[in-house]
Amino acid sequence: MLHFCNDYSEGAHPRVMRALADSNMESTAGYGCDPYCEAAREALKARFACPEADVHFLVGGTQTNLVAAAAFLRPWEAVIAAESGHVAVHETGAIEATGHKVFVVPGTDGKLSAEAVRRAVMEHRTGTEEHMVLPKLVYISDSTEFGTIYTRAELLALRAACDELGLWLYLDGARIGAALTAEGNDVAPEDFARLCDAFYFGGTKNALLFGEALVIVNETLKPFVRNVIKQRGGMLAKGRLLGVQFGAILQDDLWLETARHANAMAQRLAAGLAALGVPFFLASPTNQIFPVFPDAVVTALRDDVAFEFWAKPDERHTAIRFVCSWATDEAQVEALLACVKAHLSQV
Amino acid sequence: MLHFCNDYSEGAHPRVMRALADSNMESTAGYGCDPYCEAAREALKARFACPEADVHFLVGGTQTNLVAAAAFLRPWEAVIAAESGHVAVHETGAIEATGHKVFVVPGTDGKLSAEAVRRAVMEHRTGTEEHMVLPKLVYISDSTEFGTIYTRAELLALRAACDELGLWLYLDGARIGAALTAEGNDVAPEDFARLCDAFYFGGTKNALLFGEALVIVNETLKPFVRNVIKQRGGMLAKGRLLGVQFGAILQDDLWLETARHANAMAQRLAAGLAALGVPFFLASPTNQIFPVFPDAVVTALRDDVAFEFWAKPDERHTAIRFVCSWATDEAQVEALLACVKAHLSQV
Amino acid sequence: MLHFCNDYSEGAHPRVMRALADSNMESTAGYGCDPYCEAAREALKARFACPEADVHFLVGGTQTNLVAAAAFLRPWEAVIAAESGHVAVHETGAIEATGHKVFVVPGTDGKLSAEAVRRAVMEHRTGTEEHMVLPKLVYISDSTEFGTIYTRAELLALRAACDELGLWLYLDGARIGAALTAEGNDVAPEDFARLCDAFYFGGTKNALLFGEALVIVNETLKPFVRNVIKQRGGMLAKGRLLGVQFGAILQDDLWLETARHANAMAQRLAAGLAALGVPFFLASPTNQIFPVFPDAVVTALRDDVAFEFWAKPDERHTAIRFVCSWATDEAQVEALLACVKAHLSQV
Amino acid sequence: MLHFCNDYSEGAHPRVMRALADSNMESTAGYGCDPYCEAAREALKARFACPEADVHFLVGGTQTNLVAAAAFLRPWEAVIAAESGHVAVHETGAIEATGHKVFVVPGTDGKLSAEAVRRAVMEHRTGTEEHMVLPKLVYISDSTEFGTIYTRAELLALRAACDELGLWLYLDGARIGAALTAEGNDVAPEDFARLCDAFYFGGTKNALLFGEALVIVNETLKPFVRNVIKQRGGMLAKGRLLGVQFGAILQDDLWLETARHANAMAQRLAAGLAALGVPFFLASPTNQIFPVFPDAVVTALRDDVAFEFWAKPDERHTAIRFVCSWATDEAQVEALLACVKAHLSQV
Repeated sequence: MLHFCNDYSEGAHPRVMRALADSNMESTAGYGCDPYCEAAREALKARFACPEADVHFLVGGTQTNLVAAAAFLRPWEAVIAAESGHVAVHETGAIEATGHKVFVVPGTDGKLSAEAVRRAVMEHRTGTEEHMVLPKLVYISDSTEFGTIYTRAELLALRAACDELGLWLYLDGARIGAALTAEGNDVAPEDFARLCDAFYFGGTKNALLFGEALVIVNETLKPFVRNVIKQRGGMLAKGRLLGVQFGAILQDDLWLETARHANAMAQRLAAGLAALGVPFFLASPTNQIFPVFPDAVVTALRDDVAFEFWAKPDERHTAIRFVCSWATDEAQVEALLACVKAHLSQV
Repeated sequence: MLHFCNDYSEGAHPRVMRALADSNMESTAGYGCDPYCEAAREALKARFACPEADVHFLVGGTQTNLVAAAAFLRPWEAVIAAESGHVAVHETGAIEATGHKVFVVPGTDGKLSAEAVRRAVMEHRTGTEEHMVLPKLVYISDSTEFGTIYTRAELLALRAACDELGLWLYLDGARIGAALTAEGNDVAPEDFARLCDAFYFGGTKNALLFGEALVIVNETLKPFVRNVIKQRGGMLAKGRLLGVQFGAILQDDLWLETARHANAMAQRLAAGLAALGVPFFLASPTNQIFPVFPDAVVTALRDDVAFEFWAKPDERHTAIRFVCSWATDEAQVEALLACVKAHLSQV
Repeated sequence: MLHFCNDYSEGAHPRVMRALADSNMESTAGYGCDPYCEAAREALKARFACPEADVHFLVGGTQTNLVAAAAFLRPWEAVIAAESGHVAVHETGAIEATGHKVFVVPGTDGKLSAEAVRRAVMEHRTGTEEHMVLPKLVYISDSTEFGTIYTRAELLALRAACDELGLWLYLDGARIGAALTAEGNDVAPEDFARLCDAFYFGGTKNALLFGEALVIVNETLKPFVRNVIKQRGGMLAKGRLLGVQFGAILQDDLWLETARHANAMAQRLAAGLAALGVPFFLASPTNQIFPVFPDAVVTALRDDVAFEFWAKPDERHTAIRFVCSWATDEAQVEALLACVKAHLSQV
Repeated sequence: MLHFCNDYSEGAHPRVMRALADSNMESTAGYGCDPYCEAAREALKARFACPEADVHFLVGGTQTNLVAAAAFLRPWEAVIAAESGHVAVHETGAIEATGHKVFVVPGTDGKLSAEAVRRAVMEHRTGTEEHMVLPKLVYISDSTEFGTIYTRAELLALRAACDELGLWLYLDGARIGAALTAEGNDVAPEDFARLCDAFYFGGTKNALLFGEALVIVNETLKPFVRNVIKQRGGMLAKGRLLGVQFGAILQDDLWLETARHANAMAQRLAAGLAALGVPFFLASPTNQIFPVFPDAVVTALRDDVAFEFWAKPDERHTAIRFVCSWATDEAQVEALLACVKAHLSQV
C-alpha cells in the first residue's frame, strides 16, 4: 500500500525521536515548566523575530484553535473564516462548543481576502449590532486546506483590514512550514509574527509526533491563556515532550528542511502526473496536490494507494488529494506514478 | 535535586520507548483507526474482562474527564464528586466549561461513600427538581487524590446506590495501577468494568509518555463519543502513538509491574520516615505519601527535593506530598531519607 | 410619527389586557403551574389538534429557540437554517452560545427547501462524520423573515426529508398567525402539529404583551424541558401571566382575527404603493412588505415614518420594510400612502 | 386557601397595572429603546445616586444573574456564593451553563462574610492557580434566601475584601426593597450603588408583573451587556413594558411602600405566632419568616395554606416558610393565625 493520504501517517523525524530518547529518564517539572520548553520557546521566538511573544505548546490543531477562540473572544464575538476553513468544517463544531459562532464567507482556493473580511464586518454593522454577533477573530491558514499559500501583499491587506475594523488576525499554521518553503512564497517567518495577533507553528504535520506552538504577539491576548489550556484539557502533564520535540525541529532549521522535502516530493509527483496528462482541480505549490481522474481510475487506485476523496468536478471525474510528508521518499513517488500510469492506460 | 514531586516527571518506560521507535517509520491511518490501536483496545478489553466495551484513547486526564461529562450528560445533569475530587478542584473548571455543575460533597480521605451520594441526590429531590440540577454522574478516583483506595465493598455499595438512584458511576483511573497493586487492595481489574458505567485506565502516571484509555461499558453511553473527542480537541492525529504505548504497557502486565514498583518505593520511603519518627497526614498504601514536618524542615527540604505542599495541619507543621513513580529507584529513596534525617537533626 | 417598524410596537389587544386586569389580584402558584396556564395549554392543544403534546409558555422568541436547541440537541448536533433564518442572523449567536453550530444554506425568499436540507446533510456524510457536526434540527419559520409562507406541499416535503434523514423539524411560529391567515395559504393549524416535531405559537408579534408557546409533539423531545427553561432563565415567576394572555387570545380564535387584520392592513398598503408605481423587493402575502424606493425618498421618509432598512438592490435604490400589526388602522395606512405619494412627487 | 407560599403569587400593584393600561396603545421602539425605559433608567439612577451607571431591564432574576455571569466573567473565572445562594442551588445550574463554576462557601443565615470570601480566594492561591478557577464575582443577595439582611458594616467589609483581592461585588436584589425597609436596616439605597460593582433592583417580588433592573456601576463591566442580554434570550421585544412598570413603582417611592407593607405583614404574623409559642428556625426581619411546627401540624396546615417546606431541624419538627407580599392583607394574616392556633390546639 502506498500512503499519500496525509502528512501525519508516520511518527517523527529521527532527530526528534533521538531527542526524546536522550531525555527520557530525566526528571523535570510538568506542564511545560521545564528547561526544554523554555529553550524551545526562546528558539521559536528568535526564529520568528518576536522576542516579546508568549509561546504555548499544545498537542493538536483543533485543540489550539479552540483554546484561541475561548481565550481571545468574549461571548458575543465571532470568528470569520473561509467556508473551507478547518474551524468551519472539520472540527466537529469545536469553536461553537466554546460558545462562539463561525461566520463563513466565500474563499478563493481556501484563502480569505481582506475584501471578504470587510464585507463580513459590514454585514454586521447595520445599526442593530446587539442582535448580531460581533465578528472579531479572522481565521486564516497558511498553507490552506487547498495547499495554496498567501502572498505577503495579501497578508498585509488582511492586517490593514483588521487594524481598520478592530479585528484580531489569527493564523492556523498547521502547515506553516509547507507555506514558507513553497515555490513562489514571498512571506518570511517574521512576517507572520509581525502581521498576526497570534498564530500557531505546526509540528504534527511537519515531522513531530505531535505538537503545535501557539505564538501570541498581541499583549491584549496574553493573560490567562494557560488557564484556558488547562480548562480545555490541552495541558500536557509531561509537557517537556513538546519542548524536546520543538527544540529538535527548530535546531538548524530542520523544520524547513522537512517541509521543503515534503513540498518537493509533492511537486515531483505533480510534474509526473502532468506529464501523464492528468489535470488538476487547482494549482498548489505545497505538499498537497489535487489531481483529477476518471472515476474508474479513482476506484482502481484505491486498491493500491491510500488517499482522500476531494470533490466531484463533474459527473464522471473525481478530484482526489495526494499528500506528501517529510517521510515520503522518491521511490514512493515513482511507485505511485507507475501505478497511476498503469491504471490510466486501462481506461 | 531529588524528584518526588509527581509521577509524571520522567518520560516512558524503556519498553514503551522501544515500541515507539520500532513503529516510527510505518505509515498508518490517523485518529486511532490503525492496527496498533485496534490491538491495544482488544488487549485492554481482555485484561478488564469487558469484551463488549468501547475503548477510546485520549492524551490526558482532564481531557478524558471533560469528554466524559460532555458526552454522557444532558445540560441539566450534574456531576457528584468528593470535595477533593480532581474534577472539582484541579481542572480549572473544565466540567463547568462544558456547562455542567460539579456538586461537591464531603469525602473521607478522598473517597466518596454511597451514603454521601444518596444524601446528595436526596437534597435534589424536594419537589422542585426543575429548579435544581439533576445529579447524574458519580465521579470517583482510585487511587484517590490522597493515595487511598476503595475496597470492593465500597465500590459495590456505590454501584448499588447508582442503580437505585439512576446514576452513572464513572471512575478516574489516572492511578488505577497504583490502586490495583496496593497492599490491602481487594479489587480486581474486572471489578472496575463490572461495577462502573465507564472508567479510564491511566497511562500518563504509569510509565507512558501520555495516554488515558476511556472504557465505556454501558451501552447507553457509547454513541458518538468520538465526535465529542474531536469536538473537544482530544483526537490525536497520529493516534497510533497511543495504541503503540498502551500495547506495550499491557503486554505481560508491564503496567502492574511499574505500578507495583512505584508503590513499593513510596512504602519503603514511608517506612523509613516513620522510623525517623515522622508522622503522616493520612495513611496511604500507594505511591503518594503525606508526611508532616515542622515548617523549618519543609523550608530546608526545598533546596534539595522537589515535592508538593499539601496542607497545614497546625500553625507550625506542614504536610507535604512525596510521590514515587515507575522510574524512582532505591538510591533516590535512600538519598531522600538521608536528606530528611539530616534536616530533622537540625531542628 | 407613523409606526411601521415592526409588529411589537404596541401593548396587547384590549381583551388580553382585560384578562390580565381581571385576574390581577388572584393568588396562584408560580412558574406556570396554575389553572390559567393549564387551561391555555388545553386550548392550544385542542386548536392545533395535538392532544398529546407538551406545551411550555415562554416570554420571547430567541429564548424559545435557544431552549429548543439546548433541550433537543446533543453537543455534536447542529441546526440547519436558511441563511436568512432568525437563529442564523438576529439572535447574537444564541444557538452557538448553547454550544451548537447553525449550518446555513441558501434559502429562497426566506424559505428552506427539502432539497437544500438533503444537500446539507449529504455534505456531512463523507465517511469522516466524526470530524464534522451532525445536522439534526431543521429550523424554519412561517411566515418567514421575508413575510413569505410555506405551502403544505413544501412542508410535507420537508417532513419527508426529515423522516428519511433522521432529523427534527422545528418551526419558529413567531408569525404563525400571519402565515395561517395569508391569502393563498393552504396550511391548517393541525398541519403544523402533524408535520413538525416541535413548533412555537407566537404571541408577542400577534397582540400579546409577550409570550411564545412551545409545542412539543415528538415524545423523544419532551423530557426535562422545564429544567432547560429554568436553566436558561426562561421560566417566568408569575407564569400565569402567560396562561392568562394565551387563554384570551385563543378564545374565539381572536389570534386569527388579529393576524388577519395585520395582513389586511399590509396588503392594503402594498396595493396602494403599487398603485403609486412602487416596485417590491419581493412579494409577501403577510403583514411585512418590502417596497423599493429611490434613496432620496427613503431618507425623506425617515422624518415621518418609523421603518427598517432591508437591502440595497442597486446603488441608487433601497428596499425597506413596512410592518403592520393587529393595532395598525386604516387611517395610519392612508396617512403613510399620502406621505409616500408626497415624497415620490418630489424626486 | 391562604397563600403564604411566595411573593410572586399575585399580579402587579394597581398603579403599575394602570400605567400599563394607559400606555397600551402607544407605538414605541422595541427592545428597551423607548422613552418609558429611558425615564425609568433615569429615575432609578437618581434614586440610587449613581448617575453614571448603566441600567438594563430584564424579565427575571435567574436571567439577570446568568447575564451578569456571562457578561462579566472570562472563561476561567468563577462565582463565589454562600452555599444557600440562589445561583448555587435554585437556578438549575444556570451559571454553570454559561461555563462558570460557582464556588460555594458556608454562609451564616444566608449571608456571606468578607472572611469567607478571603478564605475562598486564598484556597485558590496556591502557586498552581492555572489548574484552578479564579474566583472573581462575589454573589450576595439582600435580603437573603433566609430573609436576613446585611448591615452596612458587613457590606463595607465585603467591599474592602473585593478591593483587596481584585473581585467584583454583585448583589442580587430580588428582595432589595424588603431589605431596605426592614427593621434594623442601616443600609441606604445609595450604599448599594457605591459598594457594589453591579446589583439588580428586583421588581417581580415587589409588586411588578415581572422585571429586574440590572445596575452596572463599574465602568469595566459596562460594554456589550445588551449583546449578552440578547444572546441569552433576555431582551424583551416590547421592552417598554419594563420601563412603564419600573417608572410606576419608582414614582413617589411606591416600591418602598409595597416592600414595607410586605415586611409589616410578615412581622405581624411572626409576632402572632410567637405569641402562640411557635419557635423559629431563624430570625428574619423581612417578608419571609420560618416558623417551626410539629410535623403533624405541618401536615394539617397543608389543607388550608400554601407554603413551602424549609428544613427538618429534628426528627419530629419541620421548619416551613411563610412569605408575605405587597398584596397580603391583615385579614389574611389573622386568618392564618387562627388556622395555626386551631391546629396547634389539636396536637
